[in-house]
Amino acid sequence: MENSSKQWRFEGNKRLNSASAISVRGVLDLVIGNLSTDDPRPTIPLGNGDPSQFACFRTSTTAEEAIVDAVHSAKYNGYAPTVGVLSARRAIANYLNRDLPYKLSADDIYVTSGCLQAIEVALAAINRPGANILLPRPGFTFYESRAAYEHLQVRHFDLLPDRGWEVDVDAIEDLADDNTVAIVIINPGNPCGSVYSYDHLKMVAETARKLGILVIADEVYGHLTFGSTPFVPMGIFGSIVPVLSLGSISKRWVVPGWRLGWLVTSDPNGILQKSGIVESITGFLNISTDPATFIQGAIPQILENTKDDFFSKVIVTLKEAADKCFDGIREVPCLTCPKKPEGSMFVMVRPYDLSAEDRGHVYIARYLHILQVKLNVSLLEDISDDLDFCMKLAKEESVIIVPAGMAFGMKNWLRITFACEISALEDGLRRIKAFHQRHVRKQ
Amino acid sequence: MENSSKQWRFEGNKRLNSASAISVRGVLDLVIGNLSTDDPRPTIPLGNGDPSQFACFRTSTTAEEAIVDAVHSAKYNGYAPTVGVLSARRAIANYLNRDLPYKLSADDIYVTSGCLQAIEVALAAINRPGANILLPRPGFTFYESRAAYEHLQVRHFDLLPDRGWEVDVDAIEDLADDNTVAIVIINPGNPCGSVYSYDHLKMVAETARKLGILVIADEVYGHLTFGSTPFVPMGIFGSIVPVLSLGSISKRWVVPGWRLGWLVTSDPNGILQKSGIVESITGFLNISTDPATFIQGAIPQILENTKDDFFSKVIVTLKEAADKCFDGIREVPCLTCPKKPEGSMFVMVRPYDLSAEDRGHVYIARYLHILQVKLNVSLLEDISDDLDFCMKLAKEESVIIVPAGMAFGMKNWLRITFACEISALEDGLRRIKAFHQRHVRKQ
Repeated sequence: MENSSKQWRFEGNKRLNSASAISVRGVLDLVIGNLSTDDPRPTIPLGNGDPSQFACFRTSTTAEEAIVDAVHSAKYNGYAPTVGVLSARRAIANYLNRDLPYKLSADDIYVTSGCLQAIEVALAAINRPGANILLPRPGFTFYESRAAYEHLQVRHFDLLPDRGWEVDVDAIEDLADDNTVAIVIINPGNPCGSVYSYDHLKMVAETARKLGILVIADEVYGHLTFGSTPFVPMGIFGSIVPVLSLGSISKRWVVPGWRLGWLVTSDPNGILQKSGIVESITGFLNISTDPATFIQGAIPQILENTKDDFFSKVIVTLKEAADKCFDGIREVPCLTCPKKPEGSMFVMVRPYDLSAEDRGHVYIARYLHILQVKLNVSLLEDISDDLDFCMKLAKEESVIIVPAGMAFGMKNWLRITFACEISALEDGLRRIKAFHQRHVRKQ
Repeated sequence: MENSSKQWRFEGNKRLNSASAISVRGVLDLVIGNLSTDDPRPTIPLGNGDPSQFACFRTSTTAEEAIVDAVHSAKYNGYAPTVGVLSARRAIANYLNRDLPYKLSADDIYVTSGCLQAIEVALAAINRPGANILLPRPGFTFYESRAAYEHLQVRHFDLLPDRGWEVDVDAIEDLADDNTVAIVIINPGNPCGSVYSYDHLKMVAETARKLGILVIADEVYGHLTFGSTPFVPMGIFGSIVPVLSLGSISKRWVVPGWRLGWLVTSDPNGILQKSGIVESITGFLNISTDPATFIQGAIPQILENTKDDFFSKVIVTLKEAADKCFDGIREVPCLTCPKKPEGSMFVMVRPYDLSAEDRGHVYIARYLHILQVKLNVSLLEDISDDLDFCMKLAKEESVIIVPAGMAFGMKNWLRITFACEISALEDGLRRIKAFHQRHVRKQ
């Protein structure tokens, strides 16, 4: 059959392709695609913030048994309501109410397929012709991708490294115009690891109110803070400004593959209802897929019964991995190694050997398992930038790390995850060192 | 806080709301929203094609244990690759290869969150400015909803009731233009229950080839046919025209809530690769949520190990329910009752008391559990149309059925699902009869 000579009328969706090109997943796929098939050694995945693949970060038995019980009950094999299973919505409301001055009801909760779908819902629901949203820089590029896909315009505001990655609030007022409909706040921050104070969040809320825009509060890392600043949910300020709060069980329970998240209308004054946003949230969910019903059915047991010692064990393990990772990176001259944290791993660490401009850029995320590392390409002979570094490292050493230039707009930075088995981490660090030695510029 | 006087700049997404309004889910939500809270009787759900809630349609223990094993293994708690877990892709390829003249590889398979997400992917991947697609009428309105959301134009071709709901192939050539990129074929058909012959499908493939457009073959009910026409997957004609085949475990395993489906490039000549469609499929998946990883992990066991007697038991149960349903509907004068099937429930049944125009419109779905029933409103005193009938039936009798006018463009038709426990079905039929008697026009 001579199909090659045939004229076909269809073609790929170019806008979709360019939207996808800026995703962390897309960047990671690029790096992973460069792995050598000849290397007999195991691949060391220091790219994705997904500790779940390692035995030491196995989720709680409570969560596992909750799923098993839900499956065996056979009560959750059918379609779920568009907005989610009622018992799950109630349990999520109760879980979030522990930290709020008012009470969310089940009606405020929309169960989503992970926090990613909560982002999809939020951006779709607020979109209208000509609208724009304010996004943090650096931020989580899934927002940029979905906005591009949605034809929703984007304006970036800076996070200020010298002020603990706080929002540049003054700049926001200049950035917004009559078509601005929302601001996205990621707290605890990805990829920066910042945790905002009550006062800072209140100032953001008041600025949003002044501008007449709503706040999308991405709190997927909520309740995973251990530093001196406690986690404050943006929903606390829901009476100042309507908030769409996003979250999931992915991070705290180390189960990102379970795809269970939520979008919450933190809005005691009912403004999201009046403005039609609630109708659009339901509208989007009507024409979208859902999280698996039996995982929704397991949510009450997961949220209510998981023991504190599960959460503590995860922290202890992360601490040990963090120490190893710092020590290993400091042995690689082309990588700027941050000052070793004293006392807690969850304090902001400043570099001892960076220019003033770079200060504050190197730190350990307070809340999770990510290290941002500055790459000095001038010390290397044949590496042009962070992407080139990561591509060749994958090819030659089967080690995956994220080039932060392409993924987060932080040129010549690398994002390294240390949440893995200690032995694999040590192996990965040895390989990075060997890679450096092979590529170092001969003087 | 005086929020009511505040001017807010955001508002709901009107396009999204209108896209959602035409969904079956939206229509069902409308009807369900009219249920009376005072009725102490259980609600009888004859609206949604979801038998999973009934004990007699419980899924196989093989499938349940496959999920439990995957959860207990703790190997599937993390993120899955964008395109799906490799072992699941391999198993799906093997499952589909049983019916194909060539061999699909794992690379041809994209694991999705149910067939709904496979539809989302397909429509997004083929979209380009000005593009239009050809959709069957009557059809599955999720396509219309997603197309509206995607700004993808839609043109409808008729399915011909007097020819077993075959595609009006001649009309397609007139309907298509240079901006037409694809045609959607739902086989076995929803909501019509038709099963297309090899020859008819081949003719559709050849027409699509002539027009230079691809075929989206929705085969979510694949392998659920039992009539004289065997199910033929459209992928058989993949060397004539590139096919995107869509499917899931939802129907055959009675687990629509598990949200596990697939999109398959049935395209031995690699045209979808060359034309950039494959890149766009991956691009969409990069910026979308995924099916739960452990459900993907369970797929090999589910597809390979489920016993035939599970499938037979479902059929026997459906046969009994179908008989009860016919008998019950025939006792309600305002509803046109189809001729009782002789021998098999899975033959097309024609009405004995319909006009020539309506012939063929009443039938039992060959493959599943749906009855289309014509409503004669002239016999009723205060019921204006199918929607009014369903809304009042929900309110007064707590019985849910789908008004096919709004949901499928079949004015004054009702879609009744008989896949439920016999006792509930009988109860529902009694209530429909009582409803009729209360509303019948007094002569």
